[in-house]
Amino acid sequence: MPSSQPAIICVAITGSLPRKSDNPAVPVSIEEQVESTHAAFEAGASICHAHVRNYDETPSSDPDLFARLKDGLEKHCPGMIIQFSTGGRSGAGRARGGMLPLAPDMASLSVGSNNFPTRVYENPPDLVSWLAGEMRNYGVKPEIEAFDLSHILQAKAMVDRGELVSPPYIQFVMGVKNAMPADRDVFDYYVHTVKRLFGDIPWCAAGIGRHQIELNAWAAEAGGHLRT
Amino acid sequence: MPSSQPAIICVAITGSLPRKSDNPAVPVSIEEQVESTHAAFEAGASICHAHVRNYDETPSSDPDLFARLKDGLEKHCPGMIIQFSTGGRSGAGRARGGMLPLAPDMASLSVGSNNFPTRVYENPPDLVSWLAGEMRNYGVKPEIEAFDLSHILQAKAMVDRGELVSPPYIQFVMGVKNAMPADRDVFDYYVHTVKRLFGDIPWCAAGIGRHQIELNAWAAEAGGHLRT
Ligand SMILES: [Zn+2]
Ligand SMILES: [Zn+2]
Ligand SMILES: [Zn+2]
Ligand SMILES: [Zn+2]
Repeated sequence: MPSSQPAIICVAITGSLPRKSDNPAVPVSIEEQVESTHAAFEAGASICHAHVRNYDETPSSDPDLFARLKDGLEKHCPGMIIQFSTGGRSGAGRARGGMLPLAPDMASLSVGSNNFPTRVYENPPDLVSWLAGEMRNYGVKPEIEAFDLSHILQAKAMVDRGELVSPPYIQFVMGVKNAMPADRDVFDYYVHTVKRLFGDIPWCAAGIGRHQIELNAWAAEAGGHLRT
Repeated sequence: MPSSQPAIICVAITGSLPRKSDNPAVPVSIEEQVESTHAAFEAGASICHAHVRNYDETPSSDPDLFARLKDGLEKHCPGMIIQFSTGGRSGAGRARGGMLPLAPDMASLSVGSNNFPTRVYENPPDLVSWLAGEMRNYGVKPEIEAFDLSHILQAKAMVDRGELVSPPYIQFVMGVKNAMPADRDVFDYYVHTVKRLFGDIPWCAAGIGRHQIELNAWAAEAGGHLRT
């Protein structure tokens, strides 16, 4: 049942993984990220999902880098929704939320743990609660990253406990090796589960790597928003 | 659709968590475990899912303790299927599979990571592959512990890669805080997913703590096996 609202397009400007040596077009410096987002904004993207990098291209959660990115995006992309990633540095503990006092419009929030291609993506329960609390404190809207089905039910439990503001905004992430594959039957069940637990609320979906176009098509057809 | 086969009952004699200080009836020594299993065997249980403990009651994966348990069970419960847990000591790495050369009939195998009440249950991809390989080497039948939906799809991926013998035997685990709750809609989708991916194969379900009776009822109704 396609939504009558136009789909919101979220652009992920720099993931936590690819480096310039993999793909010279990957925007890594703050200046490159702002210009790349500016182009996506003019092409119609309305949310910017952002990671930042250190000078050596390793994933960072340095609040100063996030502050410079926020300044640049506010100048070049006025009105764009800025979403910071708190997920890029598994194992880094509360440093992952050190940029939340900058009060971006949104931040990603993982509410469970799962496997990634070569490691465990660790989101221990006490860190999840702390990140959710910081987001409430600074008025940041979480985007729940559902790498597995239980993460949708965990979002419901957190809403019921008052840890998440109702309704939550959930993104289905599919196609990560050793996590949830891009599976249409599961995708449809995700949509069913969100509707069953929360009613007719907005949600979005992201397909990783070669699954991006596939997931965009499924999400558009089912009335969800898209990440590109 | 209830199965025409009688349900197999699996008894978990000592979990990884409760201690004598919580419940004096918890069997902790090998002798206590054997006698408690003997009673369950005479009451009709046909699989014994076993953890072992050190003298201080902390979880152990000491192959000598597993060997003593196996000897005792073979004497007191002839014909019972012995299943060793490889899951009780998150973080212990390959020590978790140190008892597999004893060639028990079965062993539990977690194929993904997830949250537990207060921590991450870590099953990194390389450890999962190694444990599955040891089970193939020693002719041990894995019981896949599905703490989340993606674990069922991961079992399918491992069968397709030849890492698991087909068909796998999957247990749905529900009711662990911060993992998958005991949710009937999800339970039905688990059953649907096993059937979709593998056809009409046996499976079982376990409800943790107060959810045990509920899950037993659901499993019996849907034609699955039970853990008590
Ligand atoms: Zn991200
Ligand atoms: Zn610009
Ligand atoms: Zn166990
Ligand atoms: Zn006996």
